[in-house]
Amino acid sequence: MSAAPLVVTMGDACGIGPEIVALACARGALADAVVIADVEVMRRATAIVAPGQAVVAIDTVSQRGALPAGVLPVLQPEGLPPGLATLPFGVVDTRAGVAAARCIRAGAMLAASGAAAALVTAPIHKEALAAAGEPYPGHTELLQAEAGAPAVRMMLANEELKTVLVSIHVALRDAIAAVSRDAVLETLRIAHAAAARWGQPSPRIAVAGLNPHAGEGGLFGDEEIRHIAPAIEAARAEGIDARGPHAPDTVFMRARRGEFDLVIAMYHDQGLIPVKYLGVEQGVNVTLGLPFVRTSPDHGTAFDLAGSGRADPASLIAACAMARRLAAGAAAR
Amino acid sequence: MSAAPLVVTMGDACGIGPEIVALACARGALADAVVIADVEVMRRATAIVAPGQAVVAIDTVSQRGALPAGVLPVLQPEGLPPGLATLPFGVVDTRAGVAAARCIRAGAMLAASGAAAALVTAPIHKEALAAAGEPYPGHTELLQAEAGAPAVRMMLANEELKTVLVSIHVALRDAIAAVSRDAVLETLRIAHAAAARWGQPSPRIAVAGLNPHAGEGGLFGDEEIRHIAPAIEAARAEGIDARGPHAPDTVFMRARRGEFDLVIAMYHDQGLIPVKYLGVEQGVNVTLGLPFVRTSPDHGTAFDLAGSGRADPASLIAACAMARRLAAGAAAR
Repeated sequence: MSAAPLVVTMGDACGIGPEIVALACARGALADAVVIADVEVMRRATAIVAPGQAVVAIDTVSQRGALPAGVLPVLQPEGLPPGLATLPFGVVDTRAGVAAARCIRAGAMLAASGAAAALVTAPIHKEALAAAGEPYPGHTELLQAEAGAPAVRMMLANEELKTVLVSIHVALRDAIAAVSRDAVLETLRIAHAAAARWGQPSPRIAVAGLNPHAGEGGLFGDEEIRHIAPAIEAARAEGIDARGPHAPDTVFMRARRGEFDLVIAMYHDQGLIPVKYLGVEQGVNVTLGLPFVRTSPDHGTAFDLAGSGRADPASLIAACAMARRLAAGAAAR
Repeated sequence: MSAAPLVVTMGDACGIGPEIVALACARGALADAVVIADVEVMRRATAIVAPGQAVVAIDTVSQRGALPAGVLPVLQPEGLPPGLATLPFGVVDTRAGVAAARCIRAGAMLAASGAAAALVTAPIHKEALAAAGEPYPGHTELLQAEAGAPAVRMMLANEELKTVLVSIHVALRDAIAAVSRDAVLETLRIAHAAAARWGQPSPRIAVAGLNPHAGEGGLFGDEEIRHIAPAIEAARAEGIDARGPHAPDTVFMRARRGEFDLVIAMYHDQGLIPVKYLGVEQGVNVTLGLPFVRTSPDHGTAFDLAGSGRADPASLIAACAMARRLAAGAAAR
């Protein structure tokens, strides 16, 4: 495992982010992590969910090593808006959006420089981010721009399945149109390169078809013949162990049983239904294509729960564990 | 449980059907069943997979009760082509197609009349059926015509999830076009009526959206607004407990946890990915809309395995168990 700590951003100060971070710490899941946050926001969250918990302000991630595992070490970026810890829970606030973006940029910088082993991000609120003047709809786009990455892909993963998506938040009709040879090939390249980063240089990558039975030889749709098979062929010519297109209804089950290391899914629900089927708590969102490991829990700010102390840190804890595992592979290269 | 036996058809004589039926019997799964088959075909299959097993020809299903549970009782329909037990395994043969269709019709008649509690069908081969001059691509269409059912739907079910499909073997592009208010409403009506038949008069039916996040209010596609929500509203006005449209990526997980009794899936893979995720062996195909319970294993004739004795009867055994459970509910009405 890398000696550098994880960095975990607090997310939107008005959502459940600070509380799940404090809970994750109380459950021992942040023993090797530094939290990028407003110190007072983290004190407020800790008072709600883990009153005895020590919150310690630090100036550099390297100070983490000198602290006991059980404390919550907070590195507060410069220039956060004042009064964040007095904002009401569960509402969109420009200042929370500004602070969230500031923490993400600080965390990304640390991960990119190698000072941190990986970046784990607690949930932010789209509208607060927009109110803060950010042109990015979410973490992924902000991080892609920040890192200057030409293309990124979303992976959703749990202990038994890793699935990488060709497209995400578009209508199913548009997702079909987005299935091109180039988009599938780029997804294969990104997935292959990411796996090498996390210590798996020759992953067996299954590519799902788009249509039932992967089109059954063109009988139920021809995207497999026109786009997906040519992408697989091109990827194989580049040395990528791409296989398929396989029938979508069984490829995930086959991967779960160990036949493949990764599955490329053609659209959002094709990949997310199987990963979430055994429980959303275990699903971790991983951004591939960045020059560092970045994971996040697969849920939002849950404004309705914020401040109640009832939010569940399970997915954030899983995101930390996944980040650690992927970063350890990268360190072991 | 109903006192009438199940009827189980042998399927294509050149495929794995007769062998998995013989294996299911050897494993005690046919103690209350009658096999509709060619007697010699069943003797050949039994010789391969369970040599000690007694095969007994009977004339009516009512004779089942007088036989020991462990024997394999075969009711041979009139008019089967001669020499079926000498056909080579693993090839398409017109006679096998004729015999398969003959057995299905005989089984359907017994189930429709109440002489049998339910119909379980072993796999047939599309091409053999076509070679036999049948105008139906498979069991479902043949049974629908035979029973004069105005509309049927496919349900795929295992111990923890039941999902009913709006469309099945069409390109994903065409499946989107098939999502209309009427098609969804008809699926809801068929599912609701079928559940009442199996002893669940007010099932909680979740309807999946078509698009990611069920369209997020029209942001990623409007089929939910234009078709699915109006169908749910119309169904609710008829007293059907229809709910949704729900985000596809979590609705199956929620049903698995007990929030819903049934999920209506908008297309083949949306519904089949979660049912198959934990193992195809447990997935059972159920035809809804017929005047009797009909189930089948969720696999084909496996011509490459036929005659080897290596076919797995697990899905057929699950299909018998599901048929028994659904029929018992109907009997308990």
